[in-house]
Amino acid sequence: MQNLETEATNASKYLSLVAREAEEKFNEHLPVATDAPFKLHEAMRYSMFAGGKRLRPALAYAAFELFGGKGDSIWYASSALEMLHTFSLIHDDLPCIDNDDFRRGKATAHKQFGEGTAVLAGDALCILAFELMAKTRKVNAIETLAKALGSYGMIGGEITDIESEGKDVDLETVEYIHYHKTAALIEASLMVGAQLADASDADIKKIQQFGKAIGLAFQVVDDILDIVSTTEELGKDAGSDLEKRKATYPAIIGLEASREKAHAFYEEAIEILKQLPGDTSVLRSIAAYIITRVN
Amino acid sequence: MQNLETEATNASKYLSLVAREAEEKFNEHLPVATDAPFKLHEAMRYSMFAGGKRLRPALAYAAFELFGGKGDSIWYASSALEMLHTFSLIHDDLPCIDNDDFRRGKATAHKQFGEGTAVLAGDALCILAFELMAKTRKVNAIETLAKALGSYGMIGGEITDIESEGKDVDLETVEYIHYHKTAALIEASLMVGAQLADASDADIKKIQQFGKAIGLAFQVVDDILDIVSTTEELGKDAGSDLEKRKATYPAIIGLEASREKAHAFYEEAIEILKQLPGDTSVLRSIAAYIITRVN
Repeated sequence: MQNLETEATNASKYLSLVAREAEEKFNEHLPVATDAPFKLHEAMRYSMFAGGKRLRPALAYAAFELFGGKGDSIWYASSALEMLHTFSLIHDDLPCIDNDDFRRGKATAHKQFGEGTAVLAGDALCILAFELMAKTRKVNAIETLAKALGSYGMIGGEITDIESEGKDVDLETVEYIHYHKTAALIEASLMVGAQLADASDADIKKIQQFGKAIGLAFQVVDDILDIVSTTEELGKDAGSDLEKRKATYPAIIGLEASREKAHAFYEEAIEILKQLPGDTSVLRSIAAYIITRVN
Repeated sequence: MQNLETEATNASKYLSLVAREAEEKFNEHLPVATDAPFKLHEAMRYSMFAGGKRLRPALAYAAFELFGGKGDSIWYASSALEMLHTFSLIHDDLPCIDNDDFRRGKATAHKQFGEGTAVLAGDALCILAFELMAKTRKVNAIETLAKALGSYGMIGGEITDIESEGKDVDLETVEYIHYHKTAALIEASLMVGAQLADASDADIKKIQQFGKAIGLAFQVVDDILDIVSTTEELGKDAGSDLEKRKATYPAIIGLEASREKAHAFYEEAIEILKQLPGDTSVLRSIAAYIITRVN
């Protein structure tokens, strides 16, 4: 565990560095609040700057660096990835979906701006993400991202998540939800970084497998934290999964087995990394960060 | 008027022909209903096959043909355009936005499938549209479309539309709403068709101006029909603009001046067409169709 924690600390430093640069770019790429429609632009900025680890931009950047990517296209992708993540959170938090009032310690978009504005701010972030991706001129990266997000990806995971609430679901369904709702976009973030760096198909495949493993680890840890953390630590309602009878790992296999599962995904991720060329230490440390994080 | 009606009849035939082909492609490009998540895929198909003139695919196809486009990429764009239009209708109809129960004579998506599913079905159609656009390999067309749809385009028009309800707005605001909410995507449909055919920048600019003029005509006629038609003729709630105190042309300048305005936009469109090379008769007839249509 000592090693894991040292690695996680290194990852935290890396995440902070990328986040600082990425947030400057968000600021450039988002519409200015002095442009009409004001309230929509305010809502887009509010949700994008409500905090967050900026994990997806960092993963994309790390993959881009690993495969020797050059130039500014990565920052368009970085903004696009965080916009797509934020779009999914805004819509997920809506009363007709998860009905959450708090996120990262702040009022959710619909609580702050009203439901109609929240729906449209999410839509606008999603569309702007594709506009920015178009600026990278890489259609393969655009396709990767759209596939990861659509009805066979993230949106498919979200609807299955809400449809499974209150039902007795099996582990297979939980794994479907975790992979689609969370891991698909984490996987795609790494792939997009690699694609912008013109990595080989074989390397893109490997980084995808690594992304799937850390993405699944991420969501198992999320399920665990919902149970063992306080609302203050999480910045969102703790215990809400239990209350909503969500399909989660701990609900089906218990806390201890869930912790083991998260570590198994971590080990799998590390094994895959070993098959990649170059200095993979940043990605290794991010994997450690993901399973040791407390919020 | 005799001439206009003959032209409109020609346009109807053209629209039917393109619609038949386009709908076969929608069927291919949409997820099959036997794939999970079933309800989401059912909702996406329900809304895409709820009728409609398929005007945007027809405009894209007409521009593609005018500029000598070859190959199948136009059908990816055609599906994408109709998906983006449908996505905007599904979200617009939501209780937190326009709160409409009927559209094209059928229950709206949220009435049929519930609000959460409607939000996510709209999202999935939007994302799938960009996946299909990526298959055209034309990043300039992807960028055109994203710009037309985002916060400075269609979404900007939608939020301004709902924010203006019940307020005394000026003609400038109505024009802003009309251009952004409706004309921007009509304009983009023509531009995308031209871009897929590798038209020159000058020709793309001209077709954009034509699109703006017919797009504005389309929305003025829509406002007029909301007043003079029955719910049965429209397939959606007639008189709902008045009831919601929407910002419309007739509300500000009256019915007769609105009719004159629609014809002025038509005349403008025809003048622009004359500056384009090739056989523009299809586009001329669609313009006539737009100002003579009754639903």
